[in-house]
This record gives sequence, structure tokens and C-alpha cells, in this order.
Amino acid sequence: MAADERIKLMSFTGSTAVGLEVGKVVQSRFGRSILELGGNAAVVVEADANLDLALQAVFFGSVGTAGQRCTSTRRLLLHEDIHDEFLERLTKLYAQVRMGDPLEDGILYGPLHTKAAVEQFKAGVAEIKAQGGEILVGGDIVTHESNGNETRGNFVAPTITAMSADSPLLQDELFLPILHTVKYSNLDEAIAINNSVPQGLASALFTTSIGSMARWTGPYGSDCGIVNVNTSSSGAEIGGAFQANKASGDSSESGSDTWKQYMRRGTATINTSNDMPLSQGIEFN
Amino acid sequence: MAADERIKLMSFTGSTAVGLEVGKVVQSRFGRSILELGGNAAVVVEADANLDLALQAVFFGSVGTAGQRCTSTRRLLLHEDIHDEFLERLTKLYAQVRMGDPLEDGILYGPLHTKAAVEQFKAGVAEIKAQGGEILVGGDIVTHESNGNETRGNFVAPTITAMSADSPLLQDELFLPILHTVKYSNLDEAIAINNSVPQGLASALFTTSIGSMARWTGPYGSDCGIVNVNTSSSGAEIGGAFQANKASGDSSESGSDTWKQYMRRGTATINTSNDMPLSQGIEFN
Amino acid sequence: MAADERIKLMSFTGSTAVGLEVGKVVQSRFGRSILELGGNAAVVVEADANLDLALQAVFFGSVGTAGQRCTSTRRLLLHEDIHDEFLERLTKLYAQVRMGDPLEDGILYGPLHTKAAVEQFKAGVAEIKAQGGEILVGGDIVTHESNGNETRGNFVAPTITAMSADSPLLQDELFLPILHTVKYSNLDEAIAINNSVPQGLASALFTTSIGSMARWTGPYGSDCGIVNVNTSSSGAEIGGAFQANKASGDSSESGSDTWKQYMRRGTATINTSNDMPLSQGIEFN
Amino acid sequence: MAADERIKLMSFTGSTAVGLEVGKVVQSRFGRSILELGGNAAVVVEADANLDLALQAVFFGSVGTAGQRCTSTRRLLLHEDIHDEFLERLTKLYAQVRMGDPLEDGILYGPLHTKAAVEQFKAGVAEIKAQGGEILVGGDIVTHESNGNETRGNFVAPTITAMSADSPLLQDELFLPILHTVKYSNLDEAIAINNSVPQGLASALFTTSIGSMARWTGPYGSDCGIVNVNTSSSGAEIGGAFQANKASGDSSESGSDTWKQYMRRGTATINTSNDMPLSQGIEFN
Repeated sequence: MAADERIKLMSFTGSTAVGLEVGKVVQSRFGRSILELGGNAAVVVEADANLDLALQAVFFGSVGTAGQRCTSTRRLLLHEDIHDEFLERLTKLYAQVRMGDPLEDGILYGPLHTKAAVEQFKAGVAEIKAQGGEILVGGDIVTHESNGNETRGNFVAPTITAMSADSPLLQDELFLPILHTVKYSNLDEAIAINNSVPQGLASALFTTSIGSMARWTGPYGSDCGIVNVNTSSSGAEIGGAFQANKASGDSSESGSDTWKQYMRRGTATINTSNDMPLSQGIEFN
Repeated sequence: MAADERIKLMSFTGSTAVGLEVGKVVQSRFGRSILELGGNAAVVVEADANLDLALQAVFFGSVGTAGQRCTSTRRLLLHEDIHDEFLERLTKLYAQVRMGDPLEDGILYGPLHTKAAVEQFKAGVAEIKAQGGEILVGGDIVTHESNGNETRGNFVAPTITAMSADSPLLQDELFLPILHTVKYSNLDEAIAINNSVPQGLASALFTTSIGSMARWTGPYGSDCGIVNVNTSSSGAEIGGAFQANKASGDSSESGSDTWKQYMRRGTATINTSNDMPLSQGIEFN
Repeated sequence: MAADERIKLMSFTGSTAVGLEVGKVVQSRFGRSILELGGNAAVVVEADANLDLALQAVFFGSVGTAGQRCTSTRRLLLHEDIHDEFLERLTKLYAQVRMGDPLEDGILYGPLHTKAAVEQFKAGVAEIKAQGGEILVGGDIVTHESNGNETRGNFVAPTITAMSADSPLLQDELFLPILHTVKYSNLDEAIAINNSVPQGLASALFTTSIGSMARWTGPYGSDCGIVNVNTSSSGAEIGGAFQANKASGDSSESGSDTWKQYMRRGTATINTSNDMPLSQGIEFN
Repeated sequence: MAADERIKLMSFTGSTAVGLEVGKVVQSRFGRSILELGGNAAVVVEADANLDLALQAVFFGSVGTAGQRCTSTRRLLLHEDIHDEFLERLTKLYAQVRMGDPLEDGILYGPLHTKAAVEQFKAGVAEIKAQGGEILVGGDIVTHESNGNETRGNFVAPTITAMSADSPLLQDELFLPILHTVKYSNLDEAIAINNSVPQGLASALFTTSIGSMARWTGPYGSDCGIVNVNTSSSGAEIGGAFQANKASGDSSESGSDTWKQYMRRGTATINTSNDMPLSQGIEFN
């Protein structure tokens, strides 16, 4: 389909690997593409943040749809002053997750979408350990739902890790309910970690400070397309453009300029006079 | 250079062949490219046109810089009612072209930029004849400048042909001072010929009629990026966007939106409240 | 109501006389007003116009709602080359007007809204004659509807006059089905007549020429807020701003900027740094 | 001049009293006016503010040009938690003001512009006391410059008062170097005091909190045209619109829309077809 000349613009949402091929094929026939590819969202929690807000947002962003959204929170950067307190509270919330059929009332956490994803989960947990990471919460295949029945789907436990900021694993998006936590000392360090990955889709900062907000959203701040403050990396994006930078696709959906991508553009210079002014001062006799 | 990750945006002006490669390489690293590639500009002269204006514009557009601009007029579509009169007047103008060193006063027409271009000119003239076209003016290598001196450059005569609208040669841009003329019967036919080539850079219509102007500039009109009325395909483009459609690159330079291509875009959703409204009606207890 | 401090913006549609007072009272408390006041629309028909189009538009604009719209066509400026032909065709259309209850099928022309308007009609007809004008069509009170019944409303005949361009009467808007015709020789003269009245609401030009269209809509063209081409002065205004210039109120309704009039505006300069850059190079030690 | 029909737009900067008359006269001829009238700027300093910043800004805004700017800080609203500390520091700054010829190096504070202003200063100080206010700093006519020479101009001491929020005097702008201080308990109270005066030109809040910034700049915040955060009420306005609300003139200068006030606006509906679509479904046979 990407090669079809009749399709002037191709809008693709999917993995970075496939999006890379789509982009090249479309470009090779001078078509246009809108690519919304993989994310690797970080949430940064500053020491002066409203922790109640941050807790809700991180919990929703990491556990919601079992971590299977492009804007799911995958990296949690915690300021050292609130690191322990925040992790303790988050761990308690994770303990209350009710697993099962998400169509049932009160069930927020369902299965992975394929058996292959369960295998990726197992491999991911092994790799976390291999790279010196620690499993703080979860890490297991789940055999029983919260109602006591045996699981009839691809259930894995929502998982929290403790990782070093330079672990190679943090560069890749596992499309799974695994949340990596990293401790940091100051905002500039947190911004550097946020920006150190190839992807550039969603990100969020929690702070009550005007100065920190300006740093984060400004030219030396997050290089992601979605640069939230005091709201989740996931699920709050409606309203503004759904913007993907870097390997997330360098594209924009549903923002104020997006319609222009669907138009053929033209520049019309219309001479309504009886004179022919030519450039470069050329005159005819 | 196209592969260099440090160059987030690459603006390339050149041939379609090279531009195609640049576009693919830049896309394969999720960079951005602005491509201004080959043109194949047509000028359409309607029966109700101001022929004085059209004559100046076509002469300037085809002979200026010896046909070596991306917006040079390469195809001249003449309505059958004014076809003979227009060609006769244009032929007289061509006869007055003074060749030589364009830095001298009164010399508008200089040499080709390379020896290779002279060979392409020879091959082009042969191909025109092979495809059933007729050389109306020029077609020769030039040995003496207008001042009588022997030429010391790659001089060829400014050339006019008569071609059938379906000649394969009209699909390609020869970057040379060759102007192909085609006779047509009504505006819709002329628009179809204009749009029948892979390139989509510059185009111009000459008419005094509001209706024809609207047809040409509207959604069923010229599919080029530059859609002029009563001015040359070349040299009048300053002011609006320099827009290239189709195989001319599907890019825009110097228009009102162009600066946005040089920016990193971000969407910031900032929650200034003490509440965390989450999507999908999720509530925390 | 105009004096009520609680009403920050007052939008008034009505006569110029009342609008003048509303504007002053609202301004005297630093409120805002949107005024859509009297019109005195002219339609200009050029010699190269599509007369079929112009005829429909003038007929609709002058007879529709019995001339009781702010955009009703009140002045018809006819180029001398088509003056007689156009008037003859328009007169035939007027002869076919079916009067009666406009809620009935096929009845386009109803009564005036008040008895006082009938008196104004009588006085207007007398004044037309007193100023040397000629009644070409109508001029009478109507006693029987087209269906033969006696009129049970304030019916007057749709009326066409021939006036000199400098008749004082042309300066005033009679809110009645009276159409004044004036003969002119060239477009600049017609534009001058169009602009010679205090009002500046609606206007229209009929032409097929790009140059005349540009002259009319450009800076030396019509000074009205609605500057149509090849469509009626009345009834086609939906979509763009309903713009009133000069004594028509100098206001805009329903255009792209209009919403701003309903907003309180503020300019926020937010310093997110820890420095206090002051103007005029003042520095603190 | 306000009555001159040739002046389509009148831009007036001056007192509210004169501006009121200008506005009415211009409106009575359907002209346009831009009015930049009296201010009565408040600066609000929250308990969480960066006091160093606030101190510089208040000092510059109240003492600069000897309080003779429309955006001069006239009312200083101090949160009770920092009230005493801030006043003490500001008093020390006032003590260091060097008076004299402002064209000399190091002299920031010059004379009043007229003898009449000195009389207004005397009357103002008397009225402050009559209304129960307290003179904390200044209040006197000044006879010697900082260099020891006798003053040769209309010098008065830069003055700070302590006033109750409901003092009638706070409703009027004295165009003099008098700064009224008022103590408050919470931000909503401060916003109400800020908005309680007829004028609506400049205002500023000092805070480090995102929430307080949003409250101040939002729909329930300052009703002034200039709504600054962490910068002076005066001297930082360049760049955005110079916006005046309420009795300050309800006008805008030098903002992004301001040029439109200098234009004649027109809406052109151009029919480029050979059909005449009329509103209300009217069809001609």
C-alpha cells in the first residue's frame, strides 16, 4: 500500500521498525507520510511536586491498558528527595490492582494482546536482571485473576524495576506493563535522561514551580512531541496536536496545522494589471 | 551529508534523480527534507489573453538564463485561435536575441554551463525529430556571438519546436533553452496537458477572464505548486511560497508556513489545578 | 439599555439615526458596540458583464422582501453600452412580479411593514419627481393582489426610477422597493458614484474581466464593507464577515475576527527566570 | 481634531477625562478611536514570591520617571506573611534614591513636570491623612538635590503610604510618585482589590507557583489589559499588545491585531461561475 501512487498521503500508526520502511517507500515516490511510531515515555517527579497528582498520573500511565499504549509511562524519574516516599506509595497502589476481564466493573487491568508478548515479558525480565536492574514489584506470569479464577488470557504482573540511567534497556520500548524507575538529583539531569533515548513521543513533568515548568517546556527542555506538566504522559493528549518527534516519527496528528498535510498546496501570483514587471530589471523595448 | 544525524533538516535544490536519494536517506533516519527538484513548466495562452503580456512573459521565461532555471518555461500551450499569430510574434522576438557574455550591457543570452549540456542539446534535437516533432526556430550549435566574435563558451541557439501533446519527450525536463509548443482547443484540454507530466513546480495561464482564472487556480486546475496568472512561470515567484508538488519534491520554501519545518514542535498540556482529570472516566478512590 | 454598565458589549442592528445614539452612549462608559445600520447598496453592471447573471441578482436584490433589507439593492449603475438593453429586460421581469401573501407558493413580493412606510413611499415618489427624476416602472399604491383580491396590507408597486448621479435623494436610504438607475461611462466613474454616499454596507459589480474585478475589490475600489463580484448585494453575504463601513456602522459581524469583540483581552508578560531585566538599561547594585 | 471627518482613526493617549470626550466625538461621526488613558497599576506580592525580584520591580515601577507613567506602580498589595519584611527592604531602597537632573549619571529620580503637579501632591498627601492613611516614607516637598544643591524644579519626595483597601482615594490615579501599600490574606482577596478600581491598564503578580500564575492570568484573575507575572507593571510591556481595559480606554496598541484598526475592511464574495445561486432557495424560470 505504501508504494501505491494513488495514495498521496499515508498515515501510519505502529512500530518504529515498520514505520521506517513505510516512510522510505512513500518518500521514494514523493508521497507524504504521517508516522506515529513507538514511544518510550518518561515521567519526571520533582521534589516540589504535588505527589498526590503525580501518583495518580503515574499509576494510570503505567498500569492502564496493561502498558500497551504508545504513550504509556515506561520510565519514572524520581528526585532523590521524594524517591523513597513516592516508590512506597506507588507500590501500595500496585498491590491493589485488580486483574481480570477489563469489561467487568472495577477491573482496570487486563491481559497482554498476544502469547508472543508474554514471551517478550519473560525475556525482558531476564534482561533487566542481566543489566543489573532490580525487580521491585511484579515480574511474574499471573495464573489467577483477582476473583480467584484461573486466568484465561496472557496475564503478567504489573512490574516496577529500579534501573541505572545508563542501562541499554532503557533505550528500547517494551510494549509491556513494565515501569523502570531511575533516581536523579536535579532537573537538568532528569531532562538529559528523558532526552537520551531515540524515541520522542510523550513526556511529563510534575512540579509546582513556574521556573521548572518553563525549563521543561522550553528549548532546553524535553525533546518529545508531547511535553506535559502535572498530567499523565498518557490519556491527556486530546485537544492539542498528537506530536511525534525523533524515532517516534517526526509527524503530527490532529493539531492545528495537520489538515494542511491533506491538501495540495499552490502559490498563485495573479497579475491583474496590463503591465508585465519582470524580475532582475529586464525591460522590453 | 544526507545521512548525518546531526543535520535534523536537509534542504536540497537540484535534480529529481538526486533529490529522490536524498529524500530516502533523510527519511530513513527520521530527519526532515525540503526538496526543490526539477520543473517542467507550462505556460497556457488562452484566446482572450492579453497577447502583449503573454509574449513578454514567455520570451523571458524560455530564453532567460538560456533556459537553465527550474522554473524556465519549457512547454507553451497555445489556443488554436491565437496559435499562429502568437508563434509568429514570438519567432520575431527570438530572432532579436543577442548572444554573448551576459555581463555585457544588452546581452541577455549566454552559454550553457557545461560541455555535457551541449551534448544533451544535440541529443535532444535528434530525439525531437525522432518523435515526430518539428524544429521551428534554432536547433543549432552557435559558433559566433552577436558581436561577430567566435563563441568562447557552450553556445546553442534558443530553440522552438512544434510537438504533439503526447510526445514522450514532454515528460522529461531538458535543462536547456528548448521551448516545445503544443496547440489546444479548450482550457480543460490545456489543463490536462499541463498536469500530464510527473513534475509539478511552476505553471502560468494567460487570460482576461475571471472564470478561466478560477478554473485554473481551483481544485480542478493546475496541479503545480506555482499556479500563476498573467505573469511568467519564472522570475515572479518571490513573495509567495516557492512550492514544489509531485516529482518536483512536494516541498515548500519561503512561504508563510516554511519556518515551521525548522522548528521542533511540541504540544504541552499543563494542568494548573490540584485535580487529575484522567481520560476514559477513570477515578481513584 | 445602552447605558447599562453590566452590558460590556452592545450589538445593535437598526437605523443609522438610532445607531448613532447607541454608539455615543456606549462609548461614554467605555463599553463596546457592534453597529449594523442603514445601507444604500449599489450594483454596477459593466458592458462585459454576464447580463443573465446580473439581471437575476438585481431583480432579487431590489424586489426581494419588498426592498426592506439593509442590503437591498437601491442604486443600479448601468454602463451606457448595455443600459437600454438591461433596463428593458429588467422592466419585463418587474411586470411579472406576483404580489400577495408571501407565505403562499409563488408569491415573492409582499406588503410594507407599516402604514407609515406607505406614506414614506408617497413622499419619496414626489421627491423623486421634484429632483428631476423619472418614474420608469411602478410608483403607485397597489389596491389588488395578483390573484385579483383587494390588498389587505400596505402594498406599493415595485418601482424603478431614472436619476441623475448627483440627485440629493441618492444620499439617503429609503427602506422601500424603489430602485434608482443611473447611467455611467466607465468603471472609475461608477466607483466614484458608489462611494459618494455616507453609507458603506453592501455593493456589487458585474463583470467578466479580471482587471475590473481587481479594481473594484482593491484599495481604489468600493469603500463598502461588502464588496461582491457577480453576485447580489443582498442575500449572498453568509460565510464572510457582515461588514459595515462608514455611516453603516463601522462594525463587523460574524467574520473571522468578530469573536474577539466578545472577549476581554489581556497581555501577559511572564518572567520565568530569576533575573529582572528592566527597560531602559536600569541596573540595580 | 476629534471631529475632523478626514481623520478616520484617532489614536489618543492621555487622561481618562479627555479620552472620554475624544471617544464620544469620534464615535458620533462613525470614526474609530484607540484610547490609552489613565492607569492605576497594582503589584501583588505573594508569600511564595522571589522577593529579590519583586523588590527591584516595585522600586523601578513606583520611583521610575517619578511615578509619571501610565503603567507606574500605584498600589502595592502585600501578603501578610511577607508584608513587614518587604516594606522594610523597600523603605531602605527608597532611602537610597538619588534626586537631581536625570540626565546626569546615577540620577534616577527627577522632578514633576509642572508646578500644578506639586500642588496635587500636597493635596494628595492631605487627603491620604484625611482618609485614615499613614505616610510611611516621604510626603514632603524637596528643597535640595542629592548633590546638596538647591532644587531647581518641581521636586517632591518619593512617598509610600499604608492604606485600607477600601479607601476612596485608591479609586483615582494620582499621576505622582506615591505608592499605596495594602495588606491582604489570600490571592483571591488580592485579585478582588486589584479589580475594584475603574481603570484596567497594568497589573503584576509575583509568585513562584504555577497554580497562582494560572489563577491570576485566567478568566477569574486580573481584569487589566496588562497581566504580568514576575515582572514590573511598568517598562516590560514592549513585545505584546499594549492593552487597556475598562476606563483605561478598552483599546489595544501595537499588538498582533492592532494593524487591523488602521485598515478599511471588506468582505468580497466573488462568483466565478455562470450560475447565480440565491439565498432562500429562490429560483428563476
